[in-house]
Amino acid sequence: MKFSQTFVRTGKEPPAHEVAKNARLLAQAGYIHKEMAGAYAFLPLGFMVLDNIVNIIREEMNRLGGEEMQLTALQRPDVWEATGRWPDNELEVWFKSQLLAGGEVGLAATHEEPLTALMREYIHSYRDLPAYPYQFQTKFRNELRAKSGIMRGREFLMKDLYSFSASWQQHGEFYEKAKQAYTYVFDRLGIGDDTFYTYADGGSFSQFSHEYQTLTEAGEDTIYLSREGGFAINEEVYTDDVLGELGVTRDDMEEVTAAEVANIFPLGTKFSDSLDLTFTDQDGAEQPVIMGSYGIGPGRVMGVLVEKFSDEKGIVWPQAVAPAQVHLAALKGGEAQADSVYAQLQENGIRVLYDDRDESPGSKLADADLMGLPTRLVCSQKTAQSEQVEVTHRASGQTEMLPVAQVTKKFG
Amino acid sequence: MKFSQTFVRTGKEPPAHEVAKNARLLAQAGYIHKEMAGAYAFLPLGFMVLDNIVNIIREEMNRLGGEEMQLTALQRPDVWEATGRWPDNELEVWFKSQLLAGGEVGLAATHEEPLTALMREYIHSYRDLPAYPYQFQTKFRNELRAKSGIMRGREFLMKDLYSFSASWQQHGEFYEKAKQAYTYVFDRLGIGDDTFYTYADGGSFSQFSHEYQTLTEAGEDTIYLSREGGFAINEEVYTDDVLGELGVTRDDMEEVTAAEVANIFPLGTKFSDSLDLTFTDQDGAEQPVIMGSYGIGPGRVMGVLVEKFSDEKGIVWPQAVAPAQVHLAALKGGEAQADSVYAQLQENGIRVLYDDRDESPGSKLADADLMGLPTRLVCSQKTAQSEQVEVTHRASGQTEMLPVAQVTKKFG
Repeated sequence: MKFSQTFVRTGKEPPAHEVAKNARLLAQAGYIHKEMAGAYAFLPLGFMVLDNIVNIIREEMNRLGGEEMQLTALQRPDVWEATGRWPDNELEVWFKSQLLAGGEVGLAATHEEPLTALMREYIHSYRDLPAYPYQFQTKFRNELRAKSGIMRGREFLMKDLYSFSASWQQHGEFYEKAKQAYTYVFDRLGIGDDTFYTYADGGSFSQFSHEYQTLTEAGEDTIYLSREGGFAINEEVYTDDVLGELGVTRDDMEEVTAAEVANIFPLGTKFSDSLDLTFTDQDGAEQPVIMGSYGIGPGRVMGVLVEKFSDEKGIVWPQAVAPAQVHLAALKGGEAQADSVYAQLQENGIRVLYDDRDESPGSKLADADLMGLPTRLVCSQKTAQSEQVEVTHRASGQTEMLPVAQVTKKFG
Repeated sequence: MKFSQTFVRTGKEPPAHEVAKNARLLAQAGYIHKEMAGAYAFLPLGFMVLDNIVNIIREEMNRLGGEEMQLTALQRPDVWEATGRWPDNELEVWFKSQLLAGGEVGLAATHEEPLTALMREYIHSYRDLPAYPYQFQTKFRNELRAKSGIMRGREFLMKDLYSFSASWQQHGEFYEKAKQAYTYVFDRLGIGDDTFYTYADGGSFSQFSHEYQTLTEAGEDTIYLSREGGFAINEEVYTDDVLGELGVTRDDMEEVTAAEVANIFPLGTKFSDSLDLTFTDQDGAEQPVIMGSYGIGPGRVMGVLVEKFSDEKGIVWPQAVAPAQVHLAALKGGEAQADSVYAQLQENGIRVLYDDRDESPGSKLADADLMGLPTRLVCSQKTAQSEQVEVTHRASGQTEMLPVAQVTKKFG
């Protein structure tokens, strides 16, 4: 795509009103726009990044046997009254509104209740189980404060998958497969090495929930990490009992700051009991369905990626999520060469952002650093004469000169 | 995909509470689930249909030069106060809620105001124009009544593109291109022949807005159609003046019932004036940006397709939007043959729904008719012996026997 044809502009400075690094960089680089505290528009290039993250998650959920669907944002009170979570003192982040036709509606903060109610129509027998519906859906949470940029908002995209199983054994087998799928997701997103399976509070559902925590100073959580064991314990359950149960001692654990990027959760029969989601087992007996919940916030992941992969010049996108692979900048005297390189890259199916704008070399190079695509190609009077282009890797800063003919091969 | 592996079930009857044909059929066939009046969940196969419609629209919007982005559902009052549309008596379909941190928020019924305000940050000079951002976004409308199934809801997906132009000429050129793109969209969706460019009320924006109206008895609009001219006039502007202006007489026009599936709208400077969206022209003078709006509701289109393409047995999906091309039913004695046909279709990249369930032949064939995939393949004891499969076209009902080897070729 050509830079001259997008309406997006970078800013000279980060927005004054932003505190969080992810929002400062993403807004300055033209990826997001703040609508209000905790609610961000995704501009075209930012939408591409979000979409790349979504597609990685989608592929792994489909591989896991998930079925994509779409629930509603408007929710009716009765399904929430059944579990006791309708009152504002029970679920503190509710946004509610009034129907003109009469009655209240809730705006989806989460979807356990409506989905459990919905599944009553489709689950009757053990032969209908297991089932693994999931969705990418906007969640609305009426947070008192929203200062973490796109890492924690009042409106954000969430992938939530729910498992419906006939037995704890069937549940457990899927739970293990889901853990593996999450590992693949974070590996593909480029944060696999710094993301840890973390034991956390299970609330009223079970002893533990499990979080995926990514090491970053921007994180809101303190966790205790066993690098050797490859897992961590959230401080909320960091007790001698839990340490003993997991076979580690305080000496094995390192205190670190991290951001929760995902969580998985055995829900047991809490929702199926309250909402009468039962099935008939092989012996003809009625049983409650065993449920589990598996969430990842694509926007939150995008924020964490920026917090982790950025430097004083701007963002450094991991390859898999970058809006394009190549940032091609045409400097004075290099325009014809750049046109030709652009055509060649496109012919080879390489995603490229071509900076063909009438801007100074300095601001073009600064924008390339700020926007953070993995590879920058520069065409100038000098490179045009040598029939080479200047190739710079954003992450390492290393530069090399390559003959034009080799450039497409390199990225092909 | 295998039918045994989806949680979706068809119903024996349409839901008793549904009036509209589209909702009755879609719910019975397992494509949608009613959450409340006017708010529907899209079940896995229904989500596929919706996604196919979305992708057709997306391709044509991208070809038109549109840039996909994503605005927010939560909206702040000040941008709406600027145009006078915040009060409930001005925009009657508002859902509003309260921030716990203080202050009101609106839930997006439409996005002109927030987008116009956003574009102030990116449009400054004539060189920044034109710009064509668009999104697929959930809209919330607090309708008093909601009895049209997915054709008119309280929550629905909308593709809205907005044009920002430096002059009426630049606007007009794009408007014509957009009309062409819309024609392509409806052709691809299979309703091109029955969808007409229709002159409608321009409200406070301009003399006319333009609707795309699809002929169907389920439509809410009365329009007057000139088949010869290839256009229609909505009854709301069906006056002698308008007839004269369009060069037709009442004798040329046929009164028909139709459903609005899209509209395009010159907005002029209404929003740019109220929200101070200006640019500096080539002479250094400050000018208001000329805007246009271009909407299509993918869910509404899906509803109209069902209203138009269905019979007493069920839905008849057009090829381009069907969740799969082939519905493969394994009857008693044909299971091994069906397994083999399924494998061959998959190898050839043909999207197939394989009914491998343990159900009676009657209910399998009835489900195939109800769900409405374009082609049904039946494998039975009889076909297995003959080494042929029975191929039935859902639309025509015509059946032929084909050697297995030819089946994949036919759909390849």
